[in-house]
Amino acid sequence: MSTTRTAIGIDFGGTTIKSAVIRDGCVLAHGEVIDTQLYAHAEALIGEMLRVIEALRAAHPEVVAVGVGLPGLVDSVNGVVHALTNVPGWSEVPLRARLAERTGLCAVIENDAKAMAYGEWRYGAAQHGRHVMCITLGTGVGGALILDGRLYRGAQLAAGEIGHASIDYRGLPGPYGNPGGLEEYVGNQQIAERAVRLYGEAGRTVPVEKCTPRDLEQAARGGDAVACGLWEAVGFEIGCALANAIWLLNPDSIVIGGGVAKAGDLLFAPIRRTVRERTQALYHENLRIVPAALGNEAGMIGCATLAAEAAVAK
Amino acid sequence: MSTTRTAIGIDFGGTTIKSAVIRDGCVLAHGEVIDTQLYAHAEALIGEMLRVIEALRAAHPEVVAVGVGLPGLVDSVNGVVHALTNVPGWSEVPLRARLAERTGLCAVIENDAKAMAYGEWRYGAAQHGRHVMCITLGTGVGGALILDGRLYRGAQLAAGEIGHASIDYRGLPGPYGNPGGLEEYVGNQQIAERAVRLYGEAGRTVPVEKCTPRDLEQAARGGDAVACGLWEAVGFEIGCALANAIWLLNPDSIVIGGGVAKAGDLLFAPIRRTVRERTQALYHENLRIVPAALGNEAGMIGCATLAAEAAVAK
Repeated sequence: MSTTRTAIGIDFGGTTIKSAVIRDGCVLAHGEVIDTQLYAHAEALIGEMLRVIEALRAAHPEVVAVGVGLPGLVDSVNGVVHALTNVPGWSEVPLRARLAERTGLCAVIENDAKAMAYGEWRYGAAQHGRHVMCITLGTGVGGALILDGRLYRGAQLAAGEIGHASIDYRGLPGPYGNPGGLEEYVGNQQIAERAVRLYGEAGRTVPVEKCTPRDLEQAARGGDAVACGLWEAVGFEIGCALANAIWLLNPDSIVIGGGVAKAGDLLFAPIRRTVRERTQALYHENLRIVPAALGNEAGMIGCATLAAEAAVAK
Repeated sequence: MSTTRTAIGIDFGGTTIKSAVIRDGCVLAHGEVIDTQLYAHAEALIGEMLRVIEALRAAHPEVVAVGVGLPGLVDSVNGVVHALTNVPGWSEVPLRARLAERTGLCAVIENDAKAMAYGEWRYGAAQHGRHVMCITLGTGVGGALILDGRLYRGAQLAAGEIGHASIDYRGLPGPYGNPGGLEEYVGNQQIAERAVRLYGEAGRTVPVEKCTPRDLEQAARGGDAVACGLWEAVGFEIGCALANAIWLLNPDSIVIGGGVAKAGDLLFAPIRRTVRERTQALYHENLRIVPAALGNEAGMIGCATLAAEAAVAK
């Protein structure tokens, strides 16, 4: 599939909306950043996005398509945003049609985790994969799947939620309904709470300011035993969740992104060890478990690429 | 895809090898049953299969293809049997080429759980599904996936093993490496052992002969509280494993087959309730969880259909 067309990718976040002109996975220009929370209604935000799109097109008239990745429930087939996480006023918004009508461009909308996975698959850490699982570690734990060389969405376009798959069927209930869901163990907030508890149990005062993943990474790299043990535990728990998905999907690549993943080998070593211990050799011998490569631009690159490919297919 | 061609389906089991002439999902004639354990070598069994194939062709000269479903590790892409469960002498056997050369037919080989899933999808309980999970409950717990309207095999063709996905990351180790794997809870032998223990804890002698799933179904239908509680627990555990797979794959249909599944609502009621409790409405509102419809013939029908479709595609 050729993607030698130029498209605008828009990363719609709960705090800011970022955009860029992208060709073949490379960022050619960045758009003006929009403050998401300044706009109470979908209409006002769509107006701002259109303004940024037109500014980018003025400098890049070769743009043929626009793709938007959004944090929430997105019907990418019909082009409708059902609801967004942490952004009020977005209920059943036919965003794709609005963008296409107002710009004349080929428009695509997608869930942000799926857009990110698509970017990592086409131009990032999973370029040579055909069966790819992506997992993003942050406030929540998101995920997306590329299966048989295609973005896999599922019956209600809601597939990929490994953060709500449980590692302990008798575990604590989470807000989304599945007791023992991975997110209840390794979300940012859960990691911070565990750190505070572990330092308390060790009779120590917390040696870092906020117990963010970055604080705890630095503590562990400085030899702090509590922080080292916590990263071991977090990697073990993620490895347990991945092992279950590996038995089910037999992927060739697993890409791990998000803030927590920046802990590097503190996290990847126990993840890889746990996967080896909990799957047969056939499943893990040729399996690559790697950090995301495109950083914060993966989502923009992914949805720009989806949009460019849709324009080519037309 | 048209499948108006006639093919032979062969269900290669650890005890017997059954075969039939199949057209459009209907069995036209059965072949002679082969006793698997009478033949110590792959060559001798292949010779017997060829004999049965030729006898079926004599009565049905319209046969254009043959498909074989085998219990073990099968490379369906290259047509090689890596190893079989409970059948010695099958190591790296190029079965597809042997059958094609000797019969002149288009030949296909596939793992038996995948063949069964394909049969249920094309002609059985999941005919209207596009994203289907199949699970077979027996001595072991097997599974297979139809995703985006295609049989999904994964990187090493080993996908679908929900029986080895864990529901408890601190559970007991199983023989295949993943502690807390579903099979360690709901395999036939595990169910029997639990029944004996539960009757003991209740201060009762075991009221049935062998604690097979069928014995325990009859006991529960007769009002036996221990047996009823056991089916509740088994359904709950299966439901927990399915909920995890549902978050990941968002299927539209789940087909449950094998001996244990014959317990009907004793099993399906707690499975469906658990799935509802552990997933969001979006995932379960339109999800069908149904018993397999083709019984023992699903595998034969599935691999005959795969073979007939391969012949059409040629």
